Amino acid sequence: MNTVNLEQLLHRYKSGHSLEQPFYTSAAVFDAEWECIFRKHWLYAGNVAQLKKAGDYFLYHLRDDAVIVVRGNDERVYAHYNTCTHRGSAICLEDSGQVSKFICPYHQWVFDKDGTLLNARMMPDDFCKEHYNLRPVHIKLTEGLIFICLATEAPDFLPIEDSLSPYVKTYQVDKAKVACIKNYTLAANWKLVAENFRECYHCGGAHPEYCKAVIGANLRESTEDFTVEKQKAWAAKGLTTALVEVTAGTTTYGVRYPLRPGFESYSIDGKKISIPMGLHQDHDAGVVGLVNYPNFWMDAVSDYIWTMKVTPVDACTTNVEFCWLVDEKAEEGKDYTLERLTAFWEITGAQDGALCENNFKGIRSNAYRPGPYAPVEDQVINFVDWCVKELRAG
Amino acid sequence: MNTVNLEQLLHRYKSGHSLEQPFYTSAAVFDAEWECIFRKHWLYAGNVAQLKKAGDYFLYHLRDDAVIVVRGNDERVYAHYNTCTHRGSAICLEDSGQVSKFICPYHQWVFDKDGTLLNARMMPDDFCKEHYNLRPVHIKLTEGLIFICLATEAPDFLPIEDSLSPYVKTYQVDKAKVACIKNYTLAANWKLVAENFRECYHCGGAHPEYCKAVIGANLRESTEDFTVEKQKAWAAKGLTTALVEVTAGTTTYGVRYPLRPGFESYSIDGKKISIPMGLHQDHDAGVVGLVNYPNFWMDAVSDYIWTMKVTPVDACTTNVEFCWLVDEKAEEGKDYTLERLTAFWEITGAQDGALCENNFKGIRSNAYRPGPYAPVEDQVINFVDWCVKELRAG
Amino acid sequence: MNTVNLEQLLHRYKSGHSLEQPFYTSAAVFDAEWECIFRKHWLYAGNVAQLKKAGDYFLYHLRDDAVIVVRGNDERVYAHYNTCTHRGSAICLEDSGQVSKFICPYHQWVFDKDGTLLNARMMPDDFCKEHYNLRPVHIKLTEGLIFICLATEAPDFLPIEDSLSPYVKTYQVDKAKVACIKNYTLAANWKLVAENFRECYHCGGAHPEYCKAVIGANLRESTEDFTVEKQKAWAAKGLTTALVEVTAGTTTYGVRYPLRPGFESYSIDGKKISIPMGLHQDHDAGVVGLVNYPNFWMDAVSDYIWTMKVTPVDACTTNVEFCWLVDEKAEEGKDYTLERLTAFWEITGAQDGALCENNFKGIRSNAYRPGPYAPVEDQVINFVDWCVKELRAG
Repeated sequence: MNTVNLEQLLHRYKSGHSLEQPFYTSAAVFDAEWECIFRKHWLYAGNVAQLKKAGDYFLYHLRDDAVIVVRGNDERVYAHYNTCTHRGSAICLEDSGQVSKFICPYHQWVFDKDGTLLNARMMPDDFCKEHYNLRPVHIKLTEGLIFICLATEAPDFLPIEDSLSPYVKTYQVDKAKVACIKNYTLAANWKLVAENFRECYHCGGAHPEYCKAVIGANLRESTEDFTVEKQKAWAAKGLTTALVEVTAGTTTYGVRYPLRPGFESYSIDGKKISIPMGLHQDHDAGVVGLVNYPNFWMDAVSDYIWTMKVTPVDACTTNVEFCWLVDEKAEEGKDYTLERLTAFWEITGAQDGALCENNFKGIRSNAYRPGPYAPVEDQVINFVDWCVKELRAG
Repeated sequence: MNTVNLEQLLHRYKSGHSLEQPFYTSAAVFDAEWECIFRKHWLYAGNVAQLKKAGDYFLYHLRDDAVIVVRGNDERVYAHYNTCTHRGSAICLEDSGQVSKFICPYHQWVFDKDGTLLNARMMPDDFCKEHYNLRPVHIKLTEGLIFICLATEAPDFLPIEDSLSPYVKTYQVDKAKVACIKNYTLAANWKLVAENFRECYHCGGAHPEYCKAVIGANLRESTEDFTVEKQKAWAAKGLTTALVEVTAGTTTYGVRYPLRPGFESYSIDGKKISIPMGLHQDHDAGVVGLVNYPNFWMDAVSDYIWTMKVTPVDACTTNVEFCWLVDEKAEEGKDYTLERLTAFWEITGAQDGALCENNFKGIRSNAYRPGPYAPVEDQVINFVDWCVKELRAG
Repeated sequence: MNTVNLEQLLHRYKSGHSLEQPFYTSAAVFDAEWECIFRKHWLYAGNVAQLKKAGDYFLYHLRDDAVIVVRGNDERVYAHYNTCTHRGSAICLEDSGQVSKFICPYHQWVFDKDGTLLNARMMPDDFCKEHYNLRPVHIKLTEGLIFICLATEAPDFLPIEDSLSPYVKTYQVDKAKVACIKNYTLAANWKLVAENFRECYHCGGAHPEYCKAVIGANLRESTEDFTVEKQKAWAAKGLTTALVEVTAGTTTYGVRYPLRPGFESYSIDGKKISIPMGLHQDHDAGVVGLVNYPNFWMDAVSDYIWTMKVTPVDACTTNVEFCWLVDEKAEEGKDYTLERLTAFWEITGAQDGALCENNFKGIRSNAYRPGPYAPVEDQVINFVDWCVKELRAG
């Protein structure tokens, strides 16, 4: 039960069917995914609205690693491992904060925001300070979204940038405000969370609020004519509508789709949530839905951005971080309330979380066998195929 | 410490002595037991008094498996794995309940109580529904006791039925009422729980209430003449008294023994607990003690049945379920109170639970060596021999 | 990630640098350390002030083993495994207590304090009682300090005795009183706790209270002349001042160093804590600092002894026990208060605990690499060298 032949599992994989049990439960498969997927690809870490001033930082926990993402004095954003080069102590002890310099709490070695070791007291004369800077992590930004990569050599970032930036730039994330960040821990394999967020076969049964806001989400309404009409209107306003699909060598999905007529935002009552963000002039930009495999989801309406960062903890546990952004000019209490801003995704996300955990419970049974995806689950097949491809390549 | 040579362990086993440490602590031995014992033999799952109406169900959790035991429309009782054949979601989310049909909470596939897939919405025309019924589990009933078997091919059920039914039929479990079910988690290997319930060497020191109710339980009183006399009286009333022993190829133990003169029931004060069950006319049926390896214990007096279901969680953890049954005509508050009904086994069971956990703590030490069972622990030897035999066969 | 080649790790070890990650995180390395270090060497278990009367006992938990340390009728102190020789039950259920005999709670086998099986009821005539005494553990005492050894053959105890006794004897531990014992669980490898307590490079930044009490602890004050002067005064009073270093084949470190002028004890305010202990006549004995690898630390001032017992639980978890001893004539409330007695090490220990846990967090990262110890961390190098040597020998 504990030994798994990954090669055979990969060989037996049959596209169109869900994966065999060990893909979801085995620690060995998870380790392989960590190496072949999470330590190879660009991972969404956060956004620049979290780092307004020089010295603002946050940590991104990736299993036993913690990456410090920090705004430098030169406005640039840096990423370092949170491990002192002296005796290995964690340096930043809080998950986010503000520093002028990084001072290790153990023996007070001092590092600059860019990672340079500035001072190591009482070390001998022949000590080469320049060999003991903080270890860097690859980092790239596009339109205020921050991606990091744990690989020795990072893959090309351009395909991600080219796909995401046309959709994100109108939001002006650098002029946005982080209204709220929440973390959830799910007792489910990370791929089940990803699969859940790649199909709406479950929406009609599980998401009354979402289906009320999004025309066609229940898969029972025809939306084609309406969508074509909206796309013309969006294009006229300079909003991109080009569908981005994950294909060979890419990891990004992008789409703009309409809210139900009468809905101004992702909200329970259909009414707007805040003032339009960035360059938006009205509440009629539809929904921008973005995904970047393996860990990034973003659903943006005219007046707010919701992002989801999916981070595996182990084969059976997944951390999910929701972040809500509004325009930096939006005043809480006046232009928006936190309660209305977060209600839509807190409710929908809780429904999804329960579905994922129940899915995982059933898959742990010996009775589980790969089942056939429905035709409307084609994006799930795309994602699972991608995972298998990455494992085969690794 | 982590690698265990099961073959050598089995080879070294010396009947009459307790098992070597790895039998109680090793995950590898536990996995072997799971395959050779728990996934091979008939397991007590519950009783029909838990399933009065069509659609009543309960779950039996067996490690990562959950088995749905459900009353069908045709009065029959069915057992299925609680895993959807689409994407594997758990279907029943509560441990017991009432359904008209099973509807998977994820994508609303619909299954009949007998496991037939009735509807899978939006699947393509060539989808073979009949291939995606719920996966069945072997099930057998005798006198209202429900047994399941996880094996591909189940062993003969007749020896169990033949042994248990003469003892159980007078209780008319189908006309009984479930008064109470309680679950306990013990930090002990499951075999220590089983061993504990196969000897009374410990009773004198540990169980004052039990020894007060059961003459001879302290192993200091002679009961032979008294027992012979009672057996004649029971036989005259048509109550079986034939001792059933576990022998080659069987798994059942059965006995009827007397309460202490003056005691009408398993109670703290010796007074009756409820009205006589089923066909019983008085409070003088003694104690029916039944065991079926590996997981079933039942102690029944004239007016109530207590069952114990022993379910391993892992090598170091065991779930124990107590169930109290009374006659369905017995009214709570009038004919019995829950407090008096459960007191005897809650007190005695808590004493046993502590003994098992202490036993396990000591066995985890490197200092532990197999020790000699006392002659009065012969039924423990029988049980341990049986476990070793099953492991050797597997 | 889970498989570790210990031989290669040991081969790559570079004295002067911290250990590679698996030494701190791998279960396999921890198992090796347990065998080569903790099951081989003398371990500090406690002191005789914990065992005033015959029958007083305490347990020392070492992973799955529990060792009973008990005062016998003959004043001697015995050590046995807490596992019954019948069916393996734990015998003593409380971590400390008082017994006249050991009676197993399961089947009432009776053992004398010296471990002799006195009575095993209902065993057959040919049962050899003398084969079923409690299994003994090696035990040695020096000046009231109790050491045990789990090895089959224990190493020579004389080097420990010779090093410790000159420092400890003036305290007369057999006439001391246990004022307080506290246990802490740290999420850190045990060696990080040991390393932390072998250097004061961190003291200036982390321990304001300690640096106030101990001149030179901040490594910024010159103390040589002052120390030489104090040593002369101590020698004149018959107090040993001979530095004991850990060298080839020994495990003990010992030193006497001065408190800051004006300080009478390890206290927050510098004032004395209690009456002088044992043979001490005043509050001017400085600090006696003793270490015995792998698990014993003691810091004693004139009026109280503080000991620290470091016990690994697993690679990632360490139990730390603090014990405070005062003279047995000291009355609580009059001669000392518990709050003042414990404050100094509770504060300093909490600071150290946090440093150790942060150190461990950073070391768990893939970014961690062995770093260079500072010259003032020479005692850490001594300890780490010793661990590597023991592993190589094992």
